Amino acid sequence: MKEEPVRQRLLSEATRLFAKQGFESTSVQEIVVAAGVTKGAMYHYFDSKDDLLHEVYARLLRMQMGRLTQIADEPGPVAERLHRAAADVVETTTEYLDDSKIFFRSMHLLAPQTQKTVRAERRRYHERFRALVTEGQREGVFRDDIPAEIVVDYFFGSVHHLGTWYHADGPLTGAQVGAHFADLLLTSLAPRD
Amino acid sequence: MKEEPVRQRLLSEATRLFAKQGFESTSVQEIVVAAGVTKGAMYHYFDSKDDLLHEVYARLLRMQMGRLTQIADEPGPVAERLHRAAADVVETTTEYLDDSKIFFRSMHLLAPQTQKTVRAERRRYHERFRALVTEGQREGVFRDDIPAEIVVDYFFGSVHHLGTWYHADGPLTGAQVGAHFADLLLTSLAPRD
Repeated sequence: MKEEPVRQRLLSEATRLFAKQGFESTSVQEIVVAAGVTKGAMYHYFDSKDDLLHEVYARLLRMQMGRLTQIADEPGPVAERLHRAAADVVETTTEYLDDSKIFFRSMHLLAPQTQKTVRAERRRYHERFRALVTEGQREGVFRDDIPAEIVVDYFFGSVHHLGTWYHADGPLTGAQVGAHFADLLLTSLAPRD
Repeated sequence: MKEEPVRQRLLSEATRLFAKQGFESTSVQEIVVAAGVTKGAMYHYFDSKDDLLHEVYARLLRMQMGRLTQIADEPGPVAERLHRAAADVVETTTEYLDDSKIFFRSMHLLAPQTQKTVRAERRRYHERFRALVTEGQREGVFRDDIPAEIVVDYFFGSVHHLGTWYHADGPLTGAQVGAHFADLLLTSLAPRD
């Protein structure tokens, strides 16, 4: 996540304030003061507070999309690639937990057009992930009596909900939770006898 | 969910308004006008807007707790009881989708003490559900290489996230999604060879 310093600072201060006091209760004024920049500088990078919230999640999603594409396109058995992709998205979500937490809390407050854009971005991610499930179903290594779409909704419900219970100082690391979730996902896809 | 008419009307109008325009943007005044009662009548039943939001979710949780207890306490193999309990909570969540959707969106806006109360109520539900998982682990019908707590967090992440994608007019009924989720859960618990 390499970014220009001012833009980066605005994003991290916005994330911190949204997480601490809520998106609704945070003003653009507070964000620019915290980042130590002028409003003019902020509007050079972002159109609005909506735009900041969108970008907090969009940059996480872009990073996760890049990693998913890399893992999915590697050679090797689809079960291994799906396991790796599943564990990876859990781990990066726990690593950037505030970003996903504040986004899922406040997404409904974004302008309809922005919500539509985010849904489209996330759909592309889910479609790439789902393609791994259907690949395994076609090969007969995954069960096909449950629609791949439902498998993806089931798995990502759990990923998007990590923010409500996962704590970095809890008993498990993000990598350990990722390994468990990936194991549960892969086992749940075992073909029926 | 049998309740006194005025109390019931306040809850259903509050739910409708919270779902439509957000908890933050809904005033007590709008709720009492929509329910056709006085503010005095509302404060007879509820202490505050927080209390209304809490109760929207609390009554869903009480109903789900009653159903879970009944299913869990029946005789019969634990795998069947867990499957039935899992399918049931998905189905009731889709049936009262607005209640859970507005709650998970706005829970962070509740007073800390109210959040604590809700967490304790939900913990009791999760503990009863988890007891089914550990019962099966003890009997050797479920794998025990993944902590029961993680299995419960994985499953309920998906349940709590239904509000973001499930639509009553979509291709699957709540019962069908419930059956799929329960199948995925049970299969994911199959003991390793």
